[in-house]
Amino acid sequence: MNSRRFDAEVYRRRLAAAAAATGAAGLDGLVITPGYDLRYLIGSRAETFERLSALVVPAAGEPTVVLPRLELASLKESAVAELDLAVRDWVDGEDPYEIVSGALGGARTAVTDSMPALHLLALADVLGVTPVLATGVMRELRMVKEAAEVDALRKAGAAIDRVHARVPEFLAPGRTEADVAADIAEAIVAEGHSEVAFIIVGSGPHGADPHHGYSDRELRVGDIVVVDIGGAFGPGYHSDCTRTYSIGEPSPDVAQQYSILQQAQRAAFDAVRPGVTAAQVDAAARSVLAEAGLAEYFVHRTGHGIGLGVHEEPYIVAGNDLPLAPGMAFSIEPGIYFPGRWGARIEDIVIVTDDGAVSLNNRPHELIVVPVP
Amino acid sequence: MNSRRFDAEVYRRRLAAAAAATGAAGLDGLVITPGYDLRYLIGSRAETFERLSALVVPAAGEPTVVLPRLELASLKESAVAELDLAVRDWVDGEDPYEIVSGALGGARTAVTDSMPALHLLALADVLGVTPVLATGVMRELRMVKEAAEVDALRKAGAAIDRVHARVPEFLAPGRTEADVAADIAEAIVAEGHSEVAFIIVGSGPHGADPHHGYSDRELRVGDIVVVDIGGAFGPGYHSDCTRTYSIGEPSPDVAQQYSILQQAQRAAFDAVRPGVTAAQVDAAARSVLAEAGLAEYFVHRTGHGIGLGVHEEPYIVAGNDLPLAPGMAFSIEPGIYFPGRWGARIEDIVIVTDDGAVSLNNRPHELIVVPVP
Repeated sequence: MNSRRFDAEVYRRRLAAAAAATGAAGLDGLVITPGYDLRYLIGSRAETFERLSALVVPAAGEPTVVLPRLELASLKESAVAELDLAVRDWVDGEDPYEIVSGALGGARTAVTDSMPALHLLALADVLGVTPVLATGVMRELRMVKEAAEVDALRKAGAAIDRVHARVPEFLAPGRTEADVAADIAEAIVAEGHSEVAFIIVGSGPHGADPHHGYSDRELRVGDIVVVDIGGAFGPGYHSDCTRTYSIGEPSPDVAQQYSILQQAQRAAFDAVRPGVTAAQVDAAARSVLAEAGLAEYFVHRTGHGIGLGVHEEPYIVAGNDLPLAPGMAFSIEPGIYFPGRWGARIEDIVIVTDDGAVSLNNRPHELIVVPVP
Repeated sequence: MNSRRFDAEVYRRRLAAAAAATGAAGLDGLVITPGYDLRYLIGSRAETFERLSALVVPAAGEPTVVLPRLELASLKESAVAELDLAVRDWVDGEDPYEIVSGALGGARTAVTDSMPALHLLALADVLGVTPVLATGVMRELRMVKEAAEVDALRKAGAAIDRVHARVPEFLAPGRTEADVAADIAEAIVAEGHSEVAFIIVGSGPHGADPHHGYSDRELRVGDIVVVDIGGAFGPGYHSDCTRTYSIGEPSPDVAQQYSILQQAQRAAFDAVRPGVTAAQVDAAARSVLAEAGLAEYFVHRTGHGIGLGVHEEPYIVAGNDLPLAPGMAFSIEPGIYFPGRWGARIEDIVIVTDDGAVSLNNRPHELIVVPVP
């Protein structure tokens, strides 16, 4: 295995499955611009430019890669050559949307959900019909992980656990969130990730903002600190794990509310098994918090799928009636947020098994007390 | 001035101009998701997530910012508070597209060209009509730079010139392209940019790939090296400048072909003045190369607009009949590429003046010979 992508056979199977799913959905073909779907299907890490690059997968017939001539070299890292895919390059002045249309074999098209409006609307003009989202086709493939994907997620999870094991030594009064984040960034790579994906060090009142990054705020004795971190591993599969730390002993109130959060996270985990819906898992966490009068402080969904994307299907959210199936991978991460005061979150990545779930993160769930002198 | 954005008054004026242009185009409103248009209109550097964040600018009435509750903190860096804009936050389970629709005041909508298909198609469903691209509305505003924008571009250009002045000392036989790139990255920031945008070090045959980045190839005596570099400056305006270097004296053939390229770049610059079309500037460079039999080695357009985006309108390309106007900023960067052998490119950023153009890059255009022992 090329460490940056899988063997070509993996992509050959995925392309065939995508074509079959496209036909089954009554569509003529898929058009995939750079992004996670493209990486999933041909191992390409190309980035979007204003010039159209796209993989065209007809329901019947061979896929074609359409790209600007001066991007031809970008195919080297992908599986395109090994897969012997047709490549149609174009130069400034040609209409790439006409080329895509010709490669499709029909107008009923689905597009990757990240396709920019610039390309989507130009393609719609040439096709004479507005495409639909490929989310339905692609998520069936991407949501259920193959063994090699689970293996990459498992290694990523073990690597981020090793980083969390080192976090207490980074958390000392007087250090800034940015100081801590720098240490964590180094540890994420040192523990085996190929790159840092994100780092949240939310101390004291900053912990009450679920999407805080890090700042020059100095840690103080008594701070509760939310540490939510992740990186990319191997062919691009992600870790994502949150633990909450206390600089010195927490107050009894904090300890009590945290223990409810811990029960909520456990309840959601216990709810996972094939056939249960994503919404039911969300409700399991939410009802524990609601019973304790904390519902209003849990301001986000319970989780998100993970793989090549840090956030992808399935979303563990109210209203999502998707039944869970073995091989699905997602986060379980309830949190409580008290604006201006403190916040806490506990997050693991789990894989659905035949009769429940397995967690890829295995550090203790307790509020971790960092001793102070 | 906040160094990361302009004063609120700048954004107030831009929002009013965008609303007026929207009405003049017969549209009811604009919907702008995170990206350069959003940064242009309200100074926000928010990034796109699967949850919808959008600025809604009705042709008549007040703008509204629609965003997930847990992203509220992301508004701090923008001008939203100073502008006193309406903010409508939403939580998981609500339909944000209905909220956007309500803030629009009509269904005839234009969207930012980077809006992901995920949001565009969901919005189209709620509106009952497919939006059009806001490119026409926004480019009129963004193409012609205000004095403060020209000032930022000018400072960025001077900073990247200082980096190029140091490049010869980085280019020594035996060093890799990646070694050189690391030195350049440090210099880009040391010379005043807030961040590195891109670095191309294309040595020998790698110079023949216009979009090569850098690799572990070692420089050798006799290599021609394309160095195309840029960074972001102040409120996010970019530099982008290419010079070509020779490790030791070039062969007479290379020197002769390079001199044609230099004439082509000069011819394009001399062609710039208000009223001339983008296509005519492209043709000016191309015809010099064609006369010398080099047309087929110039495989890309002559240039691209620059500002908050590294690539934006106006594109200097065949078929673009846009007449140039004072204040437009774009690159002039013809190149010649001989696959498997070598390549060369010369690139300056220029601003259209009342009667011609001024270059923001002022290092010598000659093939720069790096002496070898």
